[in-house]
Amino acid sequence: MDKLKRVERLTLITKELVEQPNRLISLSYFCGRFGAAKSTISEDLAIIKESLQKGDQGTLHTIAGAAGGIKYAPKLADTETKELLDHWCARLSDPKRIIPGGFLYLADVVFDPRVTSKAGGIFANYFSQLELDCVITIETKGIPLAAMTASVLNLPLIIIRDNSKVTEGSSVGINYISGSTKQIRTMSLSRRALKPGAKVLFIDDFMKAGGTAKGIHDMMAEFGGHVMGTGVFISTLEPKQKLVANYLSILQLAVLDEDQELVQLKPAL
Amino acid sequence: MDKLKRVERLTLITKELVEQPNRLISLSYFCGRFGAAKSTISEDLAIIKESLQKGDQGTLHTIAGAAGGIKYAPKLADTETKELLDHWCARLSDPKRIIPGGFLYLADVVFDPRVTSKAGGIFANYFSQLELDCVITIETKGIPLAAMTASVLNLPLIIIRDNSKVTEGSSVGINYISGSTKQIRTMSLSRRALKPGAKVLFIDDFMKAGGTAKGIHDMMAEFGGHVMGTGVFISTLEPKQKLVANYLSILQLAVLDEDQELVQLKPAL
Repeated sequence: MDKLKRVERLTLITKELVEQPNRLISLSYFCGRFGAAKSTISEDLAIIKESLQKGDQGTLHTIAGAAGGIKYAPKLADTETKELLDHWCARLSDPKRIIPGGFLYLADVVFDPRVTSKAGGIFANYFSQLELDCVITIETKGIPLAAMTASVLNLPLIIIRDNSKVTEGSSVGINYISGSTKQIRTMSLSRRALKPGAKVLFIDDFMKAGGTAKGIHDMMAEFGGHVMGTGVFISTLEPKQKLVANYLSILQLAVLDEDQELVQLKPAL
Repeated sequence: MDKLKRVERLTLITKELVEQPNRLISLSYFCGRFGAAKSTISEDLAIIKESLQKGDQGTLHTIAGAAGGIKYAPKLADTETKELLDHWCARLSDPKRIIPGGFLYLADVVFDPRVTSKAGGIFANYFSQLELDCVITIETKGIPLAAMTASVLNLPLIIIRDNSKVTEGSSVGINYISGSTKQIRTMSLSRRALKPGAKVLFIDDFMKAGGTAKGIHDMMAEFGGHVMGTGVFISTLEPKQKLVANYLSILQLAVLDEDQELVQLKPAL
């Protein structure tokens, strides 16, 4: 590559950091890529750090030493988070979304990359202080949210299946009870998927009574792992008492009345 | 926000464009956010565009007119793509991955955000010239890949389920035949999920004979939709004759011999 000007390096370094949040990149990588001295790259990074902070868009963390480098810790500006939550509530509080049986049609929203990338950023922000080995979810509707959260946190993603699959090898299966319907369900995870003692963050799209979240705790116990945090996109106001004690919910489903054709969601942050 | 210097605006504008690829952002949005004149923002964008092009990292497209603006069309540099493919092949060509029955354990790779974000970029690059309404996949293992592809292309994601779900409302179900095992399977999609005549890109993790891909064609026909492109992360060398004619495969599984404990994958691009 031709020798680049400072503004050109700033653009390309910013791109690389933003595309790989929470991933440590060594200064010598940038030196090699741009044929620039370490002092030059350090100055570039100082400018980027100050710019991100001024814009309330997170910061850069410098890790010193031979294995050190720089990583970008993103942050959604508070004003943007508030606007997003209001927008999502308005989009979801639509009686046309009511499915017979008293369910809410969510798929278009919880699969929408514009929603999942931002919600993933919110989860990542909130849980960034935890020491984590991976993000875990259970098929199917929470997968895009969990994938985006794992991407921002730079962590592996693990997906628990409803049933064991021949393509996953030997697996651990457990039964759990849906907190709201009281039905017995199964979940299954390949023995290869999780190392013993893993610290996991559970992400899902929806929590009513918390039966699934409790099932995840039981499953992790089978692997000697620990659920360090639980994040759901939507939790219901009722039942107030969930089967798990601590969780973060982004939105709350306050009202879903099939007869009166009424749906109301509120920001829960 | 305080008045920013050019280098600060460059950093923040680059961040915003890179985080939202293929999404049109109006110049007046940036003018408002940074309290800068349109001519100033235009100069910033010209610098960013030139920097991205110099680094072989894609370009900015300007759309003129009242509904116009700027959008970032990303591109993986050819050298990076080649390195990634070699790295993925080495990671997957490991006899420890063989699952009894002649399957390859893929979950850790096709769920890994470092893989899915780059593979999503490769799919997005390849199919960027198509006129598309959404990205579609079928649960479960291709979902993170499809989610990342949809994110780069700035398109909605649709997930076909194995069976109809009470939470999805009325649905269309079809039977299809697995091309390799000849078993009859079902797939189901909510009537609400897809508008008639939609042009879709099908993304999946693995293709052997192409039975699933053919099933997606049949399902789209039920909705009056069209499969414009098919992208799979891995396709098998055998059978050579797939049930669908055109598809893009990133890697090819050339050898999987359970008795000899041999696995070999090759870049297919």
